[in-house]
Amino acid sequence: MYRPKIKVIDCTIRDGGLMNKSNFSLELVRNVYKAVCASGADVVELGYRNSKKMFSVDEYGPWRFCDEEDLARVVEGIKSDKTKIAIMQDAHKAVPEDLLPKEKSVVDMVRVATYVKDIDKAIKLANNAVEKGYDATINIMSISVAIERELDEALQQIEEETKISACYIVDSFGALYSEDIDFYVDKYKKYLKNKEIGVHCHNHQQLAFANTIAGIIRGANYLDGTLYGLGRAAGNCPLELLMSFLKNPKFDIRPLLETIEKDILPLREKICWGYAIPYMITGILNMHPQVAMTLLTKSEDNPEKNDYLKFYEKLTAEQTED
Amino acid sequence: MYRPKIKVIDCTIRDGGLMNKSNFSLELVRNVYKAVCASGADVVELGYRNSKKMFSVDEYGPWRFCDEEDLARVVEGIKSDKTKIAIMQDAHKAVPEDLLPKEKSVVDMVRVATYVKDIDKAIKLANNAVEKGYDATINIMSISVAIERELDEALQQIEEETKISACYIVDSFGALYSEDIDFYVDKYKKYLKNKEIGVHCHNHQQLAFANTIAGIIRGANYLDGTLYGLGRAAGNCPLELLMSFLKNPKFDIRPLLETIEKDILPLREKICWGYAIPYMITGILNMHPQVAMTLLTKSEDNPEKNDYLKFYEKLTAEQTED
Repeated sequence: MYRPKIKVIDCTIRDGGLMNKSNFSLELVRNVYKAVCASGADVVELGYRNSKKMFSVDEYGPWRFCDEEDLARVVEGIKSDKTKIAIMQDAHKAVPEDLLPKEKSVVDMVRVATYVKDIDKAIKLANNAVEKGYDATINIMSISVAIERELDEALQQIEEETKISACYIVDSFGALYSEDIDFYVDKYKKYLKNKEIGVHCHNHQQLAFANTIAGIIRGANYLDGTLYGLGRAAGNCPLELLMSFLKNPKFDIRPLLETIEKDILPLREKICWGYAIPYMITGILNMHPQVAMTLLTKSEDNPEKNDYLKFYEKLTAEQTED
Repeated sequence: MYRPKIKVIDCTIRDGGLMNKSNFSLELVRNVYKAVCASGADVVELGYRNSKKMFSVDEYGPWRFCDEEDLARVVEGIKSDKTKIAIMQDAHKAVPEDLLPKEKSVVDMVRVATYVKDIDKAIKLANNAVEKGYDATINIMSISVAIERELDEALQQIEEETKISACYIVDSFGALYSEDIDFYVDKYKKYLKNKEIGVHCHNHQQLAFANTIAGIIRGANYLDGTLYGLGRAAGNCPLELLMSFLKNPKFDIRPLLETIEKDILPLREKICWGYAIPYMITGILNMHPQVAMTLLTKSEDNPEKNDYLKFYEKLTAEQTED
């Protein structure tokens, strides 16, 4: 009934870190890591390995950089052989030399996030990771605004110039419907003969889980999820739903339920993720959610915070300006 | 690009009334009615027409009974010819004589909700409505636990014995995946040669909107939604998302955004709907959400309210008892 080739990747700390500048406590990261390992997920992504030249260490927490000594503190006494450890490098915000040779690191997989325009940088970073002994993926962000000819060319390059395990469809804007997922998976299949296809979805239109299922049905085998959907803006595909759907007996959602209750729910006092009308509006308009995040994080007494109609009319007016 | 045959039905007040015993203020119901009419929705359902012999008028609000004089107060000065008015009768909790002849009522459509086992009662109520001049539908609830032979027989009866406009797939438990929707739409099509198919989804697994889209792709033309998903337990398909997806130029989401902000969001102080782990658990276990609703409405200081693991283990233990 289940498909053994499917790999489930938890990216709670990494994507959730976009909501709090990666300022999670070590204890929380350890708890999440432990629970995700116990659940049988294939991969857990613990943050970004981005450059300290491009992010201030005073402003951003440790999981924006994932120094090896910080990762060692996370896994100490927990380390599981079944669940691989991933970090993410942003193609435009990371450098190859920040990656040690694999044998000197607890990391197993490097995921390179990129816009189509930065594909050459991404390929360089991905090849650097593979040469140093890591498993690597390339995750093409904001795919719903990619120019199709450029995307096709990028996929062709990825096929010819890299040895990555998987290439992702990343719906950063939460703008895609299931038929769009079908379209992109088919396109990826056409170009990528020897690589798996991944899907990373956002929940602006409450479709993150559904679009992940659509990806599965169409042939994607690398699936991203986060605990209780924690992630940028409306968040991601909830890992607990995904794992329950997959039916693979190696998965156990019970450790996830426990850490959601103890570690994730309390975060809601400070971080607002999940479906909200401003995110829905950027989703249906196929726009980056930053403008909605700014609206929602304005001070509580801002009278415009909940003026949805005004927000919608402002964005649609901007989109239709000459 | 859009399919003109599709009808959008708002059931905010009716399904939302399951969360507050139909105790909405007249002002709120008027605001919702006005906004839904302005949005161009085809039908707005204003509540139940259930029997006062089976529900206490002291305990339940007016929208559990939808007396004609109450409905007249709702529509006064607003009444739109484009948006029809529906009420719901529960097959096991309503009586034919509570329905006046159509010409004495503002109601256009009677939707009969039923379990498969009560199909004969439902047919009686639906035929009563048609005879009195109303448009009628039959909405088969809890379909994910229907015994297939009984469901087939019910569909055959509906085809032969009624003149309803549409028959609904109602995923009361939020347990269905898109492939299940495909299965049920195909089954309905097989039996119902002269009736439209409707989908009414719940969001326990964040699939209400996605499953509604799955229904559309497979051929369903009657689609239920509610403002901001307000409805029992995890709620319903959000009307604002559905209408935005449909692309029919007759629809306008702006009045919906305004009433969500002004009328629906404030309800969250008293009513807890939307995705939550206890609802997710009843969804994946294909169970009625009542047990999760009870857990979540227990007093705030109940230490077990958020003990998700214990709740999950209790329900799975019950399901596997000899």
